[in-house]
Amino acid sequence: MTKKKMKLGLSIRYMGYHVGSWRHPDVPADGSSLFRSFLNVVHTAEKAKLDMVFLADGIGVRLDDKPKGSMSRSRHNVELEPLTLLSALAPLTHNIGLVATASTTYNEPYHVARKYGSLDQISGGRAAWNVVTSWSDQEAWNFSMSRQLDYDTRYERAHEFVDVVTGLWDSWDEDAFILDKQSGIFYDEKKMHVLGHVGKHFSVRGPLNVRRSPQGRPILVQAGVSEQGQQIAADYCDMVFMAKNDLKSAQDYYASVKDRLEAVGRKRADLLMVLGLTPIVGRTREEAQEKYEQLESLIDPVVGLSMLYRSFGDLSHLPLDGPVPKPDLDKVGLKSSAQMYYDLAQKQNLTIRQLYKKIGMAQEHKTVVGTAADVVDEMESWFEQGAADGFNITPTHLPHGIDDFVALVLPELRKRGRFREDYEGRTFRENLGLPVPPSRYDRASNSAEARLAG
Amino acid sequence: MTKKKMKLGLSIRYMGYHVGSWRHPDVPADGSSLFRSFLNVVHTAEKAKLDMVFLADGIGVRLDDKPKGSMSRSRHNVELEPLTLLSALAPLTHNIGLVATASTTYNEPYHVARKYGSLDQISGGRAAWNVVTSWSDQEAWNFSMSRQLDYDTRYERAHEFVDVVTGLWDSWDEDAFILDKQSGIFYDEKKMHVLGHVGKHFSVRGPLNVRRSPQGRPILVQAGVSEQGQQIAADYCDMVFMAKNDLKSAQDYYASVKDRLEAVGRKRADLLMVLGLTPIVGRTREEAQEKYEQLESLIDPVVGLSMLYRSFGDLSHLPLDGPVPKPDLDKVGLKSSAQMYYDLAQKQNLTIRQLYKKIGMAQEHKTVVGTAADVVDEMESWFEQGAADGFNITPTHLPHGIDDFVALVLPELRKRGRFREDYEGRTFRENLGLPVPPSRYDRASNSAEARLAG
Repeated sequence: MTKKKMKLGLSIRYMGYHVGSWRHPDVPADGSSLFRSFLNVVHTAEKAKLDMVFLADGIGVRLDDKPKGSMSRSRHNVELEPLTLLSALAPLTHNIGLVATASTTYNEPYHVARKYGSLDQISGGRAAWNVVTSWSDQEAWNFSMSRQLDYDTRYERAHEFVDVVTGLWDSWDEDAFILDKQSGIFYDEKKMHVLGHVGKHFSVRGPLNVRRSPQGRPILVQAGVSEQGQQIAADYCDMVFMAKNDLKSAQDYYASVKDRLEAVGRKRADLLMVLGLTPIVGRTREEAQEKYEQLESLIDPVVGLSMLYRSFGDLSHLPLDGPVPKPDLDKVGLKSSAQMYYDLAQKQNLTIRQLYKKIGMAQEHKTVVGTAADVVDEMESWFEQGAADGFNITPTHLPHGIDDFVALVLPELRKRGRFREDYEGRTFRENLGLPVPPSRYDRASNSAEARLAG
Repeated sequence: MTKKKMKLGLSIRYMGYHVGSWRHPDVPADGSSLFRSFLNVVHTAEKAKLDMVFLADGIGVRLDDKPKGSMSRSRHNVELEPLTLLSALAPLTHNIGLVATASTTYNEPYHVARKYGSLDQISGGRAAWNVVTSWSDQEAWNFSMSRQLDYDTRYERAHEFVDVVTGLWDSWDEDAFILDKQSGIFYDEKKMHVLGHVGKHFSVRGPLNVRRSPQGRPILVQAGVSEQGQQIAADYCDMVFMAKNDLKSAQDYYASVKDRLEAVGRKRADLLMVLGLTPIVGRTREEAQEKYEQLESLIDPVVGLSMLYRSFGDLSHLPLDGPVPKPDLDKVGLKSSAQMYYDLAQKQNLTIRQLYKKIGMAQEHKTVVGTAADVVDEMESWFEQGAADGFNITPTHLPHGIDDFVALVLPELRKRGRFREDYEGRTFRENLGLPVPPSRYDRASNSAEARLAG
């Protein structure tokens, strides 16, 4: 019997999720500005038949310098813009899905629909958009705003934004273009659709000036854990990127998102949930532990505290080996992280130093230290117990984090029949085994309900 | 004695500037959605050592259908977004400059600075931004606006937009990144600059999260002929893309822009003026004329009239072989084109049909029909008489328009010592022979005047 296979991606943030990754002796210190360092790891991921490469994003440089001295020690400064980078990677890859983050807070839906639509054409149907809202004043200040939008407005805007983008992607039926050189007819008027969206945040007429996606529409990814984020996922998305450290809360979240699907007319299998996972793997447990300790030693305390700043404020007046104080959730920028970090500290009884070391290792992602068998045991356990449909690998440092995963963990996963030997399809959607969502104009003509609603 | 060399670029609009280019038997009808068709012509241009590939743009689909039936016959529908396309072309090319158009009317400066900055990193210093304002209500409707901004506001916004973008590009000094793994210092605080722009249209704090350009800053191009457009060119730009049909008006415009440079502390050679040129070339004049007539036959009258619509309104009630009426410049969207088209019709005594055939051939660009020697004679004549520093080739149809130019015209240009045999430099700026503009933070510390102004 063929076992159910996992989905696997490579998630990239600078040269790794570890806050001091650039200091690792094996990492190019300026790698996040170098195209070739990204090309290198993406080629590794594609050769290994991973489903996707996933690029996170932020739209600004944090200038708090809290605690003092942390800023000039942080790699959170310069990088390549994700959509530009993925576009450059597109013609140099052939099968791997290309996921770029773009914010719904400081963009226009027409630009987003158009750029991802174009990337999808260029890549032959491998484009994906990770839908996020932007949560910091630091970013707002780069976009002529004095402060960020409040949480509810951000998510309300995000929901409408995604609705507009998916509508624009339905502008042209697949067979709209007649291209008859003799008669001079370029397209069939009946197969072009004018969106005519008028909403609270946007008015967008359309149509989009990009033809229909080779995969029906680009893949949509979402990562927000809030009620509103989960609803966007259920209404529109193909994939959810989860950051969970304990099985129970992952299972609850997994079920909570999947349970919403039936109400919107979708199947549970139509949305994939992938968990962020940082394996620190050795040929022996001792070797893995040594790698872990080397990485821990690269976390400067002042940078560690700066990572807690947005969730807890400045903690530098407190003893590093004392308890983690409760955050004021009404005041912090990144509510979900603050809650997660505090819960983690409570559950594992962590000091401030222990907490920042944990977060500094791989941000909020689950870390497993051990042999390939240890890592795969843990992956299978979560996979079989309804906590994840797959994993988005969030390596501490690159390229070694992905090299190790491919050399050590993948063979074990394949031995157990848990990962593909080769790509099954042509597009990202086909490789994910997901259905093509019907055009909203097909739905409208096939459904009396939609006709009435329209 | 070495003769002064011309600058040469390839300008791409869909599969050529001819309005019916897609109908030509040698053109892939859906080529403007296909990455490989662009890759093909860009490789041709790079092999020929051209300075640049230049992508025009518009952000929407025109839906007037005036006159009726024109819309479904128009190729102005689907294409690849220019910045996405150039990013994909970047790693597949090595020397050619990559110029993409982006509008200052519906974008945010931070996004533009970041995306072009990233393309510049990826391409090793070959990125360029063609600065435009958007002039149609059709585009405004895609960006939550009920109508376009008025002319003065658009240009005022454009001027401030370019000022912000160039400021963001100076965020990091070239040697800002220390990258000391031992001490953990990533960058030198004194070499990061916070823009802190507060203006009429934008408030942008910065700094940009992309490091300094390999060519100092990306190349800036401008094409507007108005007073305001010329001033933006003089204040910030490296190149002006001109559309002129007669020598005298090109000379006047050339002088008008160059004359502005001294007042802003720049030399006349610091800004290059390139003229849009559509060569229709044959091995004999007869062959060239046959090509021209074949192209003329591909212009559907209803599409021809639709090209005049934005400048003159609907002319379908007038006799096609009658005179061209005077446009109402206060009412039309694209003032500069309306004036240019009308002047052209007056000067050459054109009927409506003759006018739309001329415009349909290569939009507003100068067309030369003849042998390679005829084309080069004309180029040299304009080049030597102070009308242009070079030419941006605007082919009627692709790939043949550029293939013909490279096979027939380039050898003649080289024989006369008017074009390079190989690239001289590494970056686009080096190949153009242009100076690196100093960082505004260098200028500030070196100039008492700037200090006082700041």
